[in-house]
Amino acid sequence: MAVNLSAPEQLAPVAGARWATAPAAIKKPGHDDLALLLLDAGATVAGVFTRNAFAAAPVHIARARLAGARALLVNSGNANAGTGRPGHADALACCEHAAVALGLEADQVLPFSTGVIGQRLPLDRMIPAIDRLGDELSEAGWLAAARAIMTTDTVPKGASRMIDIDGERVVLTGIAKGSGMIRPDMATMLAFIATDATIAQADLDAALREAMARSFNSISVDGDTSTNDACMACATGRAATLSPAAPGWRDFVAALTDLAAELARAVVRDAEGATRFITLAVGGARDEAEARAVAFTVAHSPLVKTACFAGDPNWGRILAAVGRAPVPDFSIDGVAIALDDVAIVAEGEPRADYAEADAAAVMAQAEYTIAIDLGRGDAASTVWTSDLSYEYVRINAEYRS
Amino acid sequence: MAVNLSAPEQLAPVAGARWATAPAAIKKPGHDDLALLLLDAGATVAGVFTRNAFAAAPVHIARARLAGARALLVNSGNANAGTGRPGHADALACCEHAAVALGLEADQVLPFSTGVIGQRLPLDRMIPAIDRLGDELSEAGWLAAARAIMTTDTVPKGASRMIDIDGERVVLTGIAKGSGMIRPDMATMLAFIATDATIAQADLDAALREAMARSFNSISVDGDTSTNDACMACATGRAATLSPAAPGWRDFVAALTDLAAELARAVVRDAEGATRFITLAVGGARDEAEARAVAFTVAHSPLVKTACFAGDPNWGRILAAVGRAPVPDFSIDGVAIALDDVAIVAEGEPRADYAEADAAAVMAQAEYTIAIDLGRGDAASTVWTSDLSYEYVRINAEYRS
Repeated sequence: MAVNLSAPEQLAPVAGARWATAPAAIKKPGHDDLALLLLDAGATVAGVFTRNAFAAAPVHIARARLAGARALLVNSGNANAGTGRPGHADALACCEHAAVALGLEADQVLPFSTGVIGQRLPLDRMIPAIDRLGDELSEAGWLAAARAIMTTDTVPKGASRMIDIDGERVVLTGIAKGSGMIRPDMATMLAFIATDATIAQADLDAALREAMARSFNSISVDGDTSTNDACMACATGRAATLSPAAPGWRDFVAALTDLAAELARAVVRDAEGATRFITLAVGGARDEAEARAVAFTVAHSPLVKTACFAGDPNWGRILAAVGRAPVPDFSIDGVAIALDDVAIVAEGEPRADYAEADAAAVMAQAEYTIAIDLGRGDAASTVWTSDLSYEYVRINAEYRS
Repeated sequence: MAVNLSAPEQLAPVAGARWATAPAAIKKPGHDDLALLLLDAGATVAGVFTRNAFAAAPVHIARARLAGARALLVNSGNANAGTGRPGHADALACCEHAAVALGLEADQVLPFSTGVIGQRLPLDRMIPAIDRLGDELSEAGWLAAARAIMTTDTVPKGASRMIDIDGERVVLTGIAKGSGMIRPDMATMLAFIATDATIAQADLDAALREAMARSFNSISVDGDTSTNDACMACATGRAATLSPAAPGWRDFVAALTDLAAELARAVVRDAEGATRFITLAVGGARDEAEARAVAFTVAHSPLVKTACFAGDPNWGRILAAVGRAPVPDFSIDGVAIALDDVAIVAEGEPRADYAEADAAAVMAQAEYTIAIDLGRGDAASTVWTSDLSYEYVRINAEYRS
């Protein structure tokens, strides 16, 4: 089902970052659903977490343990969300067991969970598997980890970047999971990125937040956000030392942003039921917030998304969505809309030379751009989204059955 | 497909309000798609219109003609939206022809259109039909009009109320259409209500706006809003004189609100692809705006709506939607969630006595209430919505084909 997306052929190992995976039959047996990332001593870890008021137990615990973090323990199949104090205790128990297996303190292990909400973790099956996770750690484990954290994902998602900083090679590798409950501020989305560079925690945090804005916070599948989202960046301290004041910092942030954006687009390409990958490019706005508001209003419109599924150039639905975007003093007089290079609306009205067959040809593609110019400024923003298909409904109606 | 909704058996005539309908093959032949409401001289007309920046040509014209209005001309099958200046001229031409047929001035005729966006009206077929509309006006025409204004609606929608004001009978009858592109601020929604009472325009306007808040502005099907929405109230001046200072005014506003709410619920019951009618009752809020924000966040969640379609008590999705509602300083500690009388969450945590089979039994019904208590105040709000089914996608993917 995924749109122009295949599993990564290889992911570059990051010195000082080792993964292990194991099956624990958390939701169903027969595949790895636990993954553990062990970082070298001295590594720094930054994280961005969901802002959902019902943030799950693991989110609360991970957020409090960033300083001194050495291991990230991830399970799929169960989000450990809406599970109250017992769920919080379950997450602590998992970390405790991982810490013993790795010779760490319990508060050096950060828990992450994704999957169904409102059910207790099956500790009876998870704990024995966690106890053995320390035995198989490998720097070559990224792809196996990408598979282990999948839920409704159909394709494992990962990417690597290599940059040269003053003649020294710096590696960045990341994996992500997520295909439903996706929108800005992330959602049922987990991403783990590591670099072998040496970066102070505060600097790594700043780089991650900058990268997020143009990657995971610029996608939307269905407008829902989850209780469990997290995007983590880890620096193992085995390669060049980087800081905002030193040369190479902008190259690093650009590579991190580029890597995160590839992962974010992969999430949309693998969106539940997606048959199209759509880029919403909004320009001519007074500021970026306004451009984003228009882009997300169109991206969240079920009527636009079903028209995209049908490949139907029913551009009136795009126009109607633009028209209800929360933009102050909005006049349609300057609005232009195009599908790829097919101009449809100019100065708020349909163009005389517009031929529906041209737009239909664009929308028959698996991948295209809806360009919207508001005609009232110079700011722009890009958002990626998918269509709304029968399959989306089927997946989400049958998810627990 | 409609949930617990059938066509009204009869609609009470309103003295001084006569309808005529006719077929004009606007989208397809073989059924009435034009409706005309002629009001007695001296009638007053109030209206509430879409706030979409791309409001269609008829909306602009109708909004400007409320004073002195005598006739409402409605067509289905084509929204005359996104049609630019030529579309504006088309709407004026339709009104001009209706005015000639009725012996009115052109600016006494208000146009309303609903249907596909971005296509010109077929004037060659509409004008001859409009020219003859004046011949068949009848106070018994409400149900025929309710049928003529349908687009993807499967059931004509109408209701009547009779109240006694100081021993004098006052009648209110209304019809509505709409099943997709529905959310607060209306959307692809048209409603026409008339009463035989005598009411000054400003008072009628105030009554309509009060009624809207708890009726058409409290429903959501898919979060989309349209270019063409309008809700009109007409007072023909043939029965009791009403004003806010006189006795009976609150009875009249209550009857108008009750009538509008029945029409609004009918729109949700006939929502595109709906298999469930869901009442979202949010209480314990600091103010009504906060209660509405939570209710609409849940009502717009595709994940909640697909779980409702499946009849799956995946209450974690409700909890996740509540958690992302735009409520300041929101703590989950006081939150309670119930499905009808099945309590699921209390004080932010799942209740020990919750049994999933009980919730599944509630969600197997065609109609139930999701009750959410925020535990931080006394304000409440009620919103009505539907589920998200395969059929919703099919209808909206195939709407133009």
